[in-house]
Amino acid sequence: MNTIDGPEALKKLSLKELTILAGELRETIIATCATNGGHLAPSLGVVELTIALHRVFNSPKDKIVWDVGHQAYAHKLLTGRREAFKTLRTLGGISGFPKRAESPHDAFDVGHSSTSISAALGMALARDLKQEHNKVLAVIGDGSMTGGLAYEGLNHAGHLNKDLVVILNDNEMSISENVGALSSFLSRTITNEFVHKIKKDVEGFLENLDGLGRGVLQVAKRAEESLKGLFTPGMLFEAFGFEYVGPIDGHNVELLMETLENVKRFDDAVLIHVLTKKGKGYAPAEANPSLFHGVGPFDVATGKVLKGKGGAASYTYIFGEAMKKIAEDNDKVVAITAAMPDGTGLSGFAAKYPERFFDVGIAEQHGVTFAAGLASQGFKPVFAVYSSFLQRAYDQVFHDVCLQNLPVVFAIDRAGVVGSDGPTHHGVFDLSYLRHLPAMTLMAPKDENELQHMLQTAINHDGPAAVRYPRGNGYGVAIDQICKDIPIGKAELLRDGIDGAVLAVGTMVYPALEAAEALAGEGLNLAVINMRFIKPLDKEMILSMAEKTGRLFTIEENVLQGGFGTAVLELLEGEGLDNVAVTRFGFPDCFIEQGEQPELRARYGLDASGIAARIRAALH
Amino acid sequence: MNTIDGPEALKKLSLKELTILAGELRETIIATCATNGGHLAPSLGVVELTIALHRVFNSPKDKIVWDVGHQAYAHKLLTGRREAFKTLRTLGGISGFPKRAESPHDAFDVGHSSTSISAALGMALARDLKQEHNKVLAVIGDGSMTGGLAYEGLNHAGHLNKDLVVILNDNEMSISENVGALSSFLSRTITNEFVHKIKKDVEGFLENLDGLGRGVLQVAKRAEESLKGLFTPGMLFEAFGFEYVGPIDGHNVELLMETLENVKRFDDAVLIHVLTKKGKGYAPAEANPSLFHGVGPFDVATGKVLKGKGGAASYTYIFGEAMKKIAEDNDKVVAITAAMPDGTGLSGFAAKYPERFFDVGIAEQHGVTFAAGLASQGFKPVFAVYSSFLQRAYDQVFHDVCLQNLPVVFAIDRAGVVGSDGPTHHGVFDLSYLRHLPAMTLMAPKDENELQHMLQTAINHDGPAAVRYPRGNGYGVAIDQICKDIPIGKAELLRDGIDGAVLAVGTMVYPALEAAEALAGEGLNLAVINMRFIKPLDKEMILSMAEKTGRLFTIEENVLQGGFGTAVLELLEGEGLDNVAVTRFGFPDCFIEQGEQPELRARYGLDASGIAARIRAALH
Repeated sequence: MNTIDGPEALKKLSLKELTILAGELRETIIATCATNGGHLAPSLGVVELTIALHRVFNSPKDKIVWDVGHQAYAHKLLTGRREAFKTLRTLGGISGFPKRAESPHDAFDVGHSSTSISAALGMALARDLKQEHNKVLAVIGDGSMTGGLAYEGLNHAGHLNKDLVVILNDNEMSISENVGALSSFLSRTITNEFVHKIKKDVEGFLENLDGLGRGVLQVAKRAEESLKGLFTPGMLFEAFGFEYVGPIDGHNVELLMETLENVKRFDDAVLIHVLTKKGKGYAPAEANPSLFHGVGPFDVATGKVLKGKGGAASYTYIFGEAMKKIAEDNDKVVAITAAMPDGTGLSGFAAKYPERFFDVGIAEQHGVTFAAGLASQGFKPVFAVYSSFLQRAYDQVFHDVCLQNLPVVFAIDRAGVVGSDGPTHHGVFDLSYLRHLPAMTLMAPKDENELQHMLQTAINHDGPAAVRYPRGNGYGVAIDQICKDIPIGKAELLRDGIDGAVLAVGTMVYPALEAAEALAGEGLNLAVINMRFIKPLDKEMILSMAEKTGRLFTIEENVLQGGFGTAVLELLEGEGLDNVAVTRFGFPDCFIEQGEQPELRARYGLDASGIAARIRAALH
Repeated sequence: MNTIDGPEALKKLSLKELTILAGELRETIIATCATNGGHLAPSLGVVELTIALHRVFNSPKDKIVWDVGHQAYAHKLLTGRREAFKTLRTLGGISGFPKRAESPHDAFDVGHSSTSISAALGMALARDLKQEHNKVLAVIGDGSMTGGLAYEGLNHAGHLNKDLVVILNDNEMSISENVGALSSFLSRTITNEFVHKIKKDVEGFLENLDGLGRGVLQVAKRAEESLKGLFTPGMLFEAFGFEYVGPIDGHNVELLMETLENVKRFDDAVLIHVLTKKGKGYAPAEANPSLFHGVGPFDVATGKVLKGKGGAASYTYIFGEAMKKIAEDNDKVVAITAAMPDGTGLSGFAAKYPERFFDVGIAEQHGVTFAAGLASQGFKPVFAVYSSFLQRAYDQVFHDVCLQNLPVVFAIDRAGVVGSDGPTHHGVFDLSYLRHLPAMTLMAPKDENELQHMLQTAINHDGPAAVRYPRGNGYGVAIDQICKDIPIGKAELLRDGIDGAVLAVGTMVYPALEAAEALAGEGLNLAVINMRFIKPLDKEMILSMAEKTGRLFTIEENVLQGGFGTAVLELLEGEGLDNVAVTRFGFPDCFIEQGEQPELRARYGLDASGIAARIRAALH
């Protein structure tokens, strides 16, 4: 591996050397993930595929578009980033996902699912319009195939039938266990029922051919058997206009190279169905691919995940526990996830209430509209979803939930900066993209105990409601046994003061309090308010604080454009109060880089000392 | 028809009476659309289907979910809205789409495409959880099937295999000519190639069975023929886990009733494939279903569409002409539409540059990511799309365009209120959902001539850029022959003044100017600025006006939350200017009803007299 500075170096290696290379890549990926955390299992699953792709094709002339991009570690190692790889996912280091700015071999930036076919089709058409001659390949997992965008791309690509290679990386999983009819169809074992039906149809036809005797029946039998072979996953893709090749063993480099060489000569749309094993080559990841999909630091020898610094329970965990608790007393509560039962903390709920739990696949749009359907019939669906993934269902939140004022609850996890996954995954827009939707109630808890109360409040509210909370551990505060409703639109005064009022949202409440206490030592007496509601605002509280102090500070873990602080500006404008000084803290109008959450918050002045410094500067 | 006050009345009618009823429904729909405008062709296509559905099923106990909902006129007429029907699509009248608030027979609010399977699946699961016994039906067009959301719903529904009926209303069209591989697959004529391939496979197998003589070959021949029947569209849906029934003639009431009665007894997921003709029963609509998809007032006898009041060219038309002009000099310009070549004004471009024009189907998500793929290879894709439909691609605008700073142009038509289509179609959120995305440049022209300059500016800009413009006619201003670039972020001072400055965006510029001139007669001397750019703001202009007048008014045809006026508040806060009085005009935090555009603008104070009145009030 240490001689490979770019994909061209692969062309000279023997098959045996390629196999050794695969082992070295795996070792490096495992070691780096053990330290930095990362998407281990997906990347281990495509080591041979990556080698074969770079051996047979000529990146960057040929374009390889990785769907989601969490499987691109071997690709990074083979394309000039061997040394940089140890900085994977760290502040200032290389990204955990392909990034055009990082290497010409990264054809398209990714992070979210199901974009690869669409992007690759655009590249293929660009090539044809320029009359150039290169191959374009999309590598997409079967999980990503459950996303509607992938289907839209497939449908258009099959229709145009251009020179385009789609590699279906089928590991029978998305992030956790895969769902959906299509997935059954793809699976090597579960198509039986369908095959059975077709067999019966053919049988029926053959039985009706009377008068031709036993010999014919024998042929019929064999014809019938042959049909089994026809009803492969290929049929589906051929129906979409693709040539179908496969399924082939995705861990056999030689076979992969041979197949890719063959396909290289095609000049229409072709889909290669490759079977891989998630976590391949690292026993703990093979045994538990869901845990090792995206994993924090772990011990390589044992596969034991190392505990984070704090021992406090995560917001995600508290959410899951609260869901179980609330659902006990309210049989109208149902839970929905888009392929994230573990990530969203719903696994426990799923085990306890299997009939009230729905994993819709990587299909956030459907998740929301499906929830609206349930809500229209009196249920209280809670869609637990990451902030940046809910972006994909913005129109459904508007059209299917808010417009009908349906009581769907959005439990928005990973709001604010998420850390090493970087800009595609940071949840720093939700306050801005949800706040302008009429009928929406929008809240953020100051800690994990308040989260459960807000969840109950949202569930009991007769309209759309969202609770947004961060990735990571809570504060270890005491957890009330009983969830109680919080009055809608009422803030909580945590500290009174006269020199200014700090209006803080969610994760920013405790840091604001800490800042205020530090500043108190300097003689500045600040009020601190836990706003709780971004919408509706606690108008009374804000106006009384404006009157009392004449000086407001707003703090949120969201972009400054259109978020909570902006709502305060709008309120003051609406009230005709143009003599209140407001200073807003939040993320500026740029994409936030990757890094540990505390690093990023500190960098943007959103930790206690940053807040204190900025308030101090503003008041002096 | 005059005796039908609800669907139960249908149960007593004879087949002959039902046929007469169909004729009467058609007459009423045609007459009402001729006056009010409306979605004529889709509604004419499903008259028999609607009758059969209400005859066989028991709405509202059984839930009928209409996809998009533009085909629900017969449904409205049969469910107690015969009298109200003449108010269709007017201010205060009944909606052109199903609306739960309007009737218990409207199971789900719609307007956007591809939501029905998801919503119906939610309803079906709600029923099962409540252990109730009713049927749930989704009626979805083949056009809507090109949307990824429909596929996500289909995939999940097939997986769960609950008692659910999907009726595929196949008219081989979406809004205009349908696209996509799936559509070819559905079509009755174009599956030949695929069938041919399978036939060859079987033939190959049979030919290898040697030694069984001529008799066998004869059987083989017949077996082969029978296979044709197997490879119907049904295969695809069966692959998704649905029972497939059809295709059946969608204009034969008796056959429809028979089929629905049969299907009523099934208790798993079933798809009925119904073939209909868009515009059925009205010759001009049958001849030109695209024109009569959504049509303004027309003459019933001739089918001639009546001209609108003003004779000025529409923004849409000017956009289309500008595209042709700009593309002549810039061979990197390509155009994309999501099933709206006519609606977006791109038909002329498509005819002139067929190889540079892409209709992606009702697939806005794919449209954006596909554009990003093209842009990554040096092209300048212009995605022409309605404001409310771009909402569906919010995540793709973020993830695939802005995050990579790719030069994709969004030509956002139907921004602001759109009129009779109402709240699902108003484009009053785009400034709010696009403005907070880093890297986005966002502009709005004051008239149709400026639109073409902005389009060129956007195309020549090296990054994401959006131009938003309204539905309807321009002002009839002179159209410059040559498109010229406008300096990014520079506003245009149209009128100077010292008593206040009116910062106006897009459609609000001329009304603001008119208001200012009216107020000048009262001794109020107002500056009026055509802002041109919502992002980046012309900071210099705004600050100098703030300094000069101390009094700013912002006007936009967008919600007040997070839009342009808000951006001005944010700018002033960022500059620490807390002594500038700002008053923002725009739409309040509620869904805007249907009505003519001028009616709606007047109702919300966004016409010249409303603006004048509010400025007058603020300044006195």
